[in-house]
Amino acid sequence: MTNPTAAMLVIGDEILSGRTRDGNTHYLAGELTNRGIRLMEVRVVADEAAAIIEAVNALRTRWDHVFTSGGIGPTHDDITADAIAAAFGVAITHRADAMALLGAHYARAGLEFNAARQRMARIPDGAALIDNPVSTAPGFTLGNVHVMAGVPSVFQAMVASVLQGITGGQPLLSQSLRVMRGEGEIATPFAALAAEFPDLSMGSYPFTQNGAFGTNLVIRGTDAGQIDAAMTRLCALFA
Amino acid sequence: MTNPTAAMLVIGDEILSGRTRDGNTHYLAGELTNRGIRLMEVRVVADEAAAIIEAVNALRTRWDHVFTSGGIGPTHDDITADAIAAAFGVAITHRADAMALLGAHYARAGLEFNAARQRMARIPDGAALIDNPVSTAPGFTLGNVHVMAGVPSVFQAMVASVLQGITGGQPLLSQSLRVMRGEGEIATPFAALAAEFPDLSMGSYPFTQNGAFGTNLVIRGTDAGQIDAAMTRLCALFA
Repeated sequence: MTNPTAAMLVIGDEILSGRTRDGNTHYLAGELTNRGIRLMEVRVVADEAAAIIEAVNALRTRWDHVFTSGGIGPTHDDITADAIAAAFGVAITHRADAMALLGAHYARAGLEFNAARQRMARIPDGAALIDNPVSTAPGFTLGNVHVMAGVPSVFQAMVASVLQGITGGQPLLSQSLRVMRGEGEIATPFAALAAEFPDLSMGSYPFTQNGAFGTNLVIRGTDAGQIDAAMTRLCALFA
Repeated sequence: MTNPTAAMLVIGDEILSGRTRDGNTHYLAGELTNRGIRLMEVRVVADEAAAIIEAVNALRTRWDHVFTSGGIGPTHDDITADAIAAAFGVAITHRADAMALLGAHYARAGLEFNAARQRMARIPDGAALIDNPVSTAPGFTLGNVHVMAGVPSVFQAMVASVLQGITGGQPLLSQSLRVMRGEGEIATPFAALAAEFPDLSMGSYPFTQNGAFGTNLVIRGTDAGQIDAAMTRLCALFA
C-alpha cells in the first residue's frame, strides 16, 4: 500500500497519571482510516519540553504527518507551542493574526484579553494557523506537524480543518467475520489464507461470550475486489 | 520524586486502524499511580517485528519497567514473543513449563493441543512466566519487560500478578478543585502558586458546562502535607 502515513503524539500528564482517558487517538484513527491515511505509531508523553521535542523530531522525520493533542492553552503547563518551535529550531512570537482573532473573541465576550490569554497567540515562525470554530484559540501546522488542542470537541474540529487540506490515499477498507470458535482452532487455516493474499492484512481478535470462546477475523486492505475474494474464502472455511 | 518509572507499549494494528479503542493503558496508568510508579511514556505500534523491537529497546533502556499488551495469542499475527526475544538477542523455544500448563488446560477442556495452541508456549530464554488465571496462556517477564495479553480481562489479571512482585514508591497523590472560571482567568495566580511548590506538579484542565467555561485544577505529588498546604492556598485564591 502506498497510502500516506501518520503518527499521533498525545501530550499530557493527565493521561499518564490515569486521571483522564485519552479518546483523541481513537477518534483520529477512525478519521485517518476513512481517508486512506495509515496511522503507524502513537506516543503519549508528559508535559515536559525535552520529551515533547524528542518525540516530535522522531515522528516528523519518519512519517508523512504528525498530529499532536494537548498543551496549547493559557496556563503554565501549556508548553507545546514552545516545544514545537524548539524542535524545528525556529522562533516563537505573539503573532498578529492570532492576536487579532483572540482579541476580537474576548472583546465580544466582554472579557479581559490578559497576558495568559495572549499566550495562546504565540505561534512558531512559519506555521499556518488551524481554525478553531469551537473556542477560537487556533492550532497550527508547522512543516508536517499539526498541533491541536486536547479538549475533544476542539480537537475534532481542528482535525476536520486539517484533513480538508491533506491528500489522502485509497480508502483503507475492512471486512470482518465473527465466529464462535477459539483462535487456536482457526489459526492454521487462517494463516494459510493470509499467506495467499499478501496485499491484505488479516488479524484475529478473541472474545468470550457467556463463557464460550469466539474470534473476530478482520481483513484489511485497499482493493475491494481482493477483500471480497478473501472474505468469500474465509466464510467457506469457518462460517 | 524518586518513584520507579514505567512505560507502556501497546502492540496492535486494531488500535491504529481505529477498530478497537485501547483501554489497557488507562487501566495500567491508574494501577501504577496507586502504587507510586510513574508512567512516563506510552507507545502504540503495529504488529510488525521491526517496530516492536525498536520500541521495546528504546523503552527498556530508559525506564525501570516496560509493560506490553497484545500479540501473544496463537495466530499468525501474534509475533510479540518472537520480537521480544529478538530485542534481547535471546533464543525462543516451546518451554516445558508453559507446554505443561497449556497441555493440561486443553486436556481438561477436551480440545486438541494443536500446533497453533502450542505456539502460546513459546517463551524467550531467561523469562519468568506471568500467571494467567483467566485463560491459562501465560505472559512472561524478561529483564524489566512484562509481556501481557491484549484482551482486557487477561491483561488486568496479568498486571495484578506482575505488580505483586514489583516494589513501588510513595503513592502518587492528587487533589483537585473544580472552578467555574476559564483557564485564561486563573492562569497567572495559578502559575505563581505552582512556582512556590516546586516538588508538586500542578495542571489545569478546561471544560465547558451549559456553555460556561470551567477548569479542573489538579495538584499532584507524594507529600500529603505539601498537597494539603497548596490546596488550602488554591481554595483561598479561587473557591
